[in-house]
Amino acid sequence: MAFELPPSSAKRLDDLYKRLQDDVERFVGYPCTAEIDYRELFRFLEFPINNVGDPYKDGTLKLHTHDFEREVIDWFGRLLQAPENSFWGYVTNGGTEGNLYGLYLARELFPSGMTYYSEDTHYSVAKNLRVLNMQNIMINSQPSGELDYEDLRETIKINRHIPPIIFANIGTTMREGIDRIDRIREILDELAIPGFYIHCDAALAGMTLPFIDGAPEFDFSERVDSISISGHKFIGSPIPCGLVLADRNNVQRIARSIEYVGTLDTTITGSRNAFSPLILWYAIQRWGYDGFKERVASCLENAEYAVKKFLENGVEAWKNPHAITVVFPRPSDEIIERWQIAVQEEIGHLLVMPHVTRELIDEFVADYLNHPDTSSSAADS
Amino acid sequence: MAFELPPSSAKRLDDLYKRLQDDVERFVGYPCTAEIDYRELFRFLEFPINNVGDPYKDGTLKLHTHDFEREVIDWFGRLLQAPENSFWGYVTNGGTEGNLYGLYLARELFPSGMTYYSEDTHYSVAKNLRVLNMQNIMINSQPSGELDYEDLRETIKINRHIPPIIFANIGTTMREGIDRIDRIREILDELAIPGFYIHCDAALAGMTLPFIDGAPEFDFSERVDSISISGHKFIGSPIPCGLVLADRNNVQRIARSIEYVGTLDTTITGSRNAFSPLILWYAIQRWGYDGFKERVASCLENAEYAVKKFLENGVEAWKNPHAITVVFPRPSDEIIERWQIAVQEEIGHLLVMPHVTRELIDEFVADYLNHPDTSSSAADS
Repeated sequence: MAFELPPSSAKRLDDLYKRLQDDVERFVGYPCTAEIDYRELFRFLEFPINNVGDPYKDGTLKLHTHDFEREVIDWFGRLLQAPENSFWGYVTNGGTEGNLYGLYLARELFPSGMTYYSEDTHYSVAKNLRVLNMQNIMINSQPSGELDYEDLRETIKINRHIPPIIFANIGTTMREGIDRIDRIREILDELAIPGFYIHCDAALAGMTLPFIDGAPEFDFSERVDSISISGHKFIGSPIPCGLVLADRNNVQRIARSIEYVGTLDTTITGSRNAFSPLILWYAIQRWGYDGFKERVASCLENAEYAVKKFLENGVEAWKNPHAITVVFPRPSDEIIERWQIAVQEEIGHLLVMPHVTRELIDEFVADYLNHPDTSSSAADS
Repeated sequence: MAFELPPSSAKRLDDLYKRLQDDVERFVGYPCTAEIDYRELFRFLEFPINNVGDPYKDGTLKLHTHDFEREVIDWFGRLLQAPENSFWGYVTNGGTEGNLYGLYLARELFPSGMTYYSEDTHYSVAKNLRVLNMQNIMINSQPSGELDYEDLRETIKINRHIPPIIFANIGTTMREGIDRIDRIREILDELAIPGFYIHCDAALAGMTLPFIDGAPEFDFSERVDSISISGHKFIGSPIPCGLVLADRNNVQRIARSIEYVGTLDTTITGSRNAFSPLILWYAIQRWGYDGFKERVASCLENAEYAVKKFLENGVEAWKNPHAITVVFPRPSDEIIERWQIAVQEEIGHLLVMPHVTRELIDEFVADYLNHPDTSSSAADS
């Protein structure tokens, strides 16, 4: 197995490594923790490991990490107050798969349902709905990014004969606005809707809100049906991954439908990454509930610091309560490029993840002020 | 970042490592190469890398390996005779995603199409069709696992008004039977079908047939529309991955449909693994066309050796031409368990991957003979 890359190829990898080292220094625009260290786990990449199929049913293939995956799911189950013994979940390849899964379950329960989601919803959801062939209506958002409840109420009202499937954002992509599950349920109650489904896209905030006292609740105690959380965001993973948790009874409905092939094929993907459950397991060992709580508190303080810093310098920055996303007027292309800032129309944002220090914030704000956006119109679609 | 796992957790990982070391020794039942060494790449797991979005359009996020991904796709494009400049592809999370993608494109082109696939098709395809809400008909297979062309002809014939979507198996899961694209096209021509779509699931054989002289052709020169190949099978990867290649024009149809969100979101998953493209790139550097050709030839010889060995011992084993899958009567549960043998009804199979030596084959056959299946009926559904 001794193999040495030809020098030109080896240089390609070295150059890539240097480029990443350089670019990660100013990585403040995306919700991914850059402070990661999983060296302890690299040895598991010596094996063709594969978590094929249901994590709760070990099959013939033994090169798996199902037991670690189950521990991770159980930890999240407790965090999200899932009723013991009646929930199910698996480690996904990321938010898209988790949301696709939740919507798939919803469609199987309510084949003629109508999906409602706000205009601030992540772009992948429209694609998911298209893939699943589900009818849907986009609802207005408030300036905070949160759902416009009046619009939701009025829209469901004229479609009362159609079971509603609510796609709730627990932290929207650009503004980290939180759709309130209690208010959504109030509307459903008020309109006497007999059957409905609520899926929570908690990609980022699923790992922050549960650690913040007094934050809006979105967990299974609020009787939501499924929740998707990303593993490569707040937790930090070099490989996109995530978790989806759902009511076990609903999952069994789709499991049955393909049992004739003799397999409990309950996940979207067949062959599944067995390395990312180890990453999540390791992170849980590393930080635990208390460690994550501390990290979240520190990010919140730093996010507030960033807002203050911007305001002191005359920049109208703001953030939602409980959010680590700081919104500010769209920066110049130079800043977007140098700091990898995601922008949408007239705004940009800073994600105050665990690796984003006050020094880095100071540096960013100074650079932002020194390179104002001079384009005639800041809006871009 | 200095962190040491508590001893009990460290032991868990050590135990897992030992278990995998042990189980990989007799890993002959699944189509995954166990002979892998990607140590050179581990350092890239220090970064939150992410190949979000279209591999051909670098976005704001810089921590990606899009250039390596493009090289991998181009290599496969040449291998599969894709017309330069008019094909497109991306590195997926595995076969399921590649097949889902091909079927998704097919459905967007032919929303009222009918999908035909053989009964030997991988179980995930029925799930894909369900997810995509596509009408479909299962076609009989021949004993070799190959599609029953007569049944296909007769079935399309009575549905000539519906555009056919052919899901072709380039190597079925249990018997590695190959659906012949030339024969399928003959049927479509004969019935004067004006519009159709052909997707090839070439999970395993997509990396063997192109290296075998005189093997059935399934590539873009045969005018198929999309091809999915697994990266963790013949190539060998510790993380499930794959490639999907498709006609660029068809992909642009779905890209357009979500352009209003301002992103060229052409892939099924949003955030995407940026490590697996490095793995595939490295494997291509390591083996190259000639190296893979040699490996395939050696596996074929060893597979023939395995059949001979079984036959010499009175076991009715067989394999398809050009196949590295050796089929034999279902073994006892003890053998299934010890050697991780996938079984279906009355058969089991051996996958003669690059790490499966003649010594290992001898050992398996001896063990198989020593532990015959004593259950009253070998059939199990």
